[in-house]
Amino acid sequence: MRISLKEVTAETETAEVIGWVHEVRDLGGLSFYILRDRTGFLQATVVKKKAPEAVLEAAKEVSRESVVKISGTVKPTEKAPGGRELIPDSFEIISKAETPLPLDVSEKVLAEVETRLDNRYLDARRPKVGAIFQIRSAVTHGINDYFFNNGFININTSKIVAAATEGGTELFPIAYFEKEAFLNQSPQLYKQMMMAAGFEKVFEIAPIFRAEEHNTTRHLNEATSIDVEFSFADHNDAMDLLEDVVIAAYENVEKNCSDEIATLGIDFEIPKKSFPRISYAEAIDIAAARIEEDIGYGDDLSTAAERAIGEEMGVHYFITDWPTAIKPYYAMPYEDEPEICKAFDMMHPRMELSSGAQRVHQHDLLVEQIQSKGLSPESFEFYLKPFKYGMPPHAGWGMGMERLIMTMLDLPNIREAVLFPRDRHRVTP
Amino acid sequence: MRISLKEVTAETETAEVIGWVHEVRDLGGLSFYILRDRTGFLQATVVKKKAPEAVLEAAKEVSRESVVKISGTVKPTEKAPGGRELIPDSFEIISKAETPLPLDVSEKVLAEVETRLDNRYLDARRPKVGAIFQIRSAVTHGINDYFFNNGFININTSKIVAAATEGGTELFPIAYFEKEAFLNQSPQLYKQMMMAAGFEKVFEIAPIFRAEEHNTTRHLNEATSIDVEFSFADHNDAMDLLEDVVIAAYENVEKNCSDEIATLGIDFEIPKKSFPRISYAEAIDIAAARIEEDIGYGDDLSTAAERAIGEEMGVHYFITDWPTAIKPYYAMPYEDEPEICKAFDMMHPRMELSSGAQRVHQHDLLVEQIQSKGLSPESFEFYLKPFKYGMPPHAGWGMGMERLIMTMLDLPNIREAVLFPRDRHRVTP
Repeated sequence: MRISLKEVTAETETAEVIGWVHEVRDLGGLSFYILRDRTGFLQATVVKKKAPEAVLEAAKEVSRESVVKISGTVKPTEKAPGGRELIPDSFEIISKAETPLPLDVSEKVLAEVETRLDNRYLDARRPKVGAIFQIRSAVTHGINDYFFNNGFININTSKIVAAATEGGTELFPIAYFEKEAFLNQSPQLYKQMMMAAGFEKVFEIAPIFRAEEHNTTRHLNEATSIDVEFSFADHNDAMDLLEDVVIAAYENVEKNCSDEIATLGIDFEIPKKSFPRISYAEAIDIAAARIEEDIGYGDDLSTAAERAIGEEMGVHYFITDWPTAIKPYYAMPYEDEPEICKAFDMMHPRMELSSGAQRVHQHDLLVEQIQSKGLSPESFEFYLKPFKYGMPPHAGWGMGMERLIMTMLDLPNIREAVLFPRDRHRVTP
Repeated sequence: MRISLKEVTAETETAEVIGWVHEVRDLGGLSFYILRDRTGFLQATVVKKKAPEAVLEAAKEVSRESVVKISGTVKPTEKAPGGRELIPDSFEIISKAETPLPLDVSEKVLAEVETRLDNRYLDARRPKVGAIFQIRSAVTHGINDYFFNNGFININTSKIVAAATEGGTELFPIAYFEKEAFLNQSPQLYKQMMMAAGFEKVFEIAPIFRAEEHNTTRHLNEATSIDVEFSFADHNDAMDLLEDVVIAAYENVEKNCSDEIATLGIDFEIPKKSFPRISYAEAIDIAAARIEEDIGYGDDLSTAAERAIGEEMGVHYFITDWPTAIKPYYAMPYEDEPEICKAFDMMHPRMELSSGAQRVHQHDLLVEQIQSKGLSPESFEFYLKPFKYGMPPHAGWGMGMERLIMTMLDLPNIREAVLFPRDRHRVTP
């Protein structure tokens, strides 16, 4: 019965394992094969004078990154990783790797990101890369659990749509039989329709698509969005929920991924409730005092501004009370001060992670807001209709999975947080 | 503090609730308002001689499907649903619905499916429709839990791709900046690449896109696929896993959705392990004996054939040992009988739910198989490369979420299992 490499301890007597040959060292009378699987490493030691003939043959033939199955006796030793080594009784090459490899998996220094992404199947064998995706899976698990345990209904909304969420910009067009269609930028309108349907609390974790031209280390053209909408809630409820979800994600990683955190060698700290909440006006003041560029009330926050405010704050924080003019039409203006609205951004010191708001639920106000953005209510008919027939007050947010992972693990480039990134120039593998 | 309608029992003393006005009945001195939320119904009874003036005004003004907030005293009564009624002290209209409604939510008889889908936000307010999606969410939850608890890594693979999984057919083209790209039909090639990456056990629940021309009650152009791939496993392991996943889905529904099952009024039975396994040859024999049309070894199974075999089997079952010629190139042929392969379909008596196989993991055999299907290995280079550098043996399957729900809940049309279906003619709402 095969066991994982991590399950082999200094106390194990015999073991059958399967792994990739991470390193080979031949010292003449002795040769060492460092095996690797997704749980860790194990050294197999072949003593040439003692090993069975079949073992010697396979050991001689095997190449790095081949898949092998080895069974034998386990011995404690201080010289091998994990304090144990496996002395093979049998050594079978399950899948032999050609040489040379397009990418050296055992190199400590990572290759250029483009080369790595071209050979992602090899790149992801590196423990530091594999760890990112094991952690990403734990984040997804933690977030799913949080929502399911708190009465949210998981929904799947269509990614092929006839209309844009926020007008016609940044959409990838699709040839949908004889019709014009697009890839959805956000499930925003659909999750709001589910509020009209009385689903009350919904979430979706799914791809979103943005035809953004800029190619930076923190933008993707296809990303995974964690989306939430819930009824009878305002922006403060939405911020409370968002804090809880982020903390649940971190907690599940802490609970299940201590090995991966160690592999990455990062400081891992669960953010503390409650995240500070500053108004947009305060945020602008902080930025204006800290950066060279001219920034004033009503401006979007530039990358430099976000960075400056993040340095000042030092932890996850919210920016609230945005000017209505620079937030989407579906953000609810304050009744007594309609030039600001109940929208928020949730920020990591490095960058924005999430945007949310209490939404406009009154049909006529929504039509006004759509018009005030220079958009035509006619093109939103399918979306506006539900607001006439019993739309409850509601709030929600969307959070980028990749940015959550990138900031959690201190990754330099958002592409590190995606298996097969899509950017301005990359559509393969 | 607001409570859900289900939480109001005959023992409750006072309650504050929010709901949609499902029905109004005015008997002169008395009027009844049946409220609805996602948990059930509650009757609010207004006694005109006793009610406060503000309650009478709101009660007079309110229209069906408006959202209302009512607080008051709860009284047991055998005449109202759930054996209790709420006598309002306050009655607030939170969101008033216009009249007439585009779709009558309280009608027992459902409207035409097209009208319903056009007004999905109202259609989904019907308890029988809402129940489907609460159950679908529980299915997703059950399946997620099964995978996470069994060491599977959740992956997200790109939906925008440069090449087709099975040649160039049935793809939606996208304008991806200046490049040609497509919507992915299946994460097949990507999940196999993750086997090369050593992830060992992966799953993904995500949209797939097929530009199929046929418009039937069991095809969708955008669907949700539950995809699995795992290493050091064969087709038998994959079938064992698939049984377990289906059973886990049913079990989570039984555990958490007894109200929804009752609302749908269906027989709900958890499938029993182990699903019978018959060979393709046996399946053909059963079909040939039962249907009029000419069917023989080597043919695909028609809808009529599937139905005939399903009637004979009566439970979920597998069809194994398919002719290599009619399965995709990535299905592993038997070593001693290469004209049949280690592929399987998992069937509900009504229809196919899943296809899977042990995969070809040997590079040269895979190239041969791609060529034998009339495809060009050159166009699969990004996929073939990983097979040269230590690809482990592996197996996997994909299962259609909507077909799983459709068969579980005995739905007549697959569109019933999707919030916003996309078919040959429909791309809205």
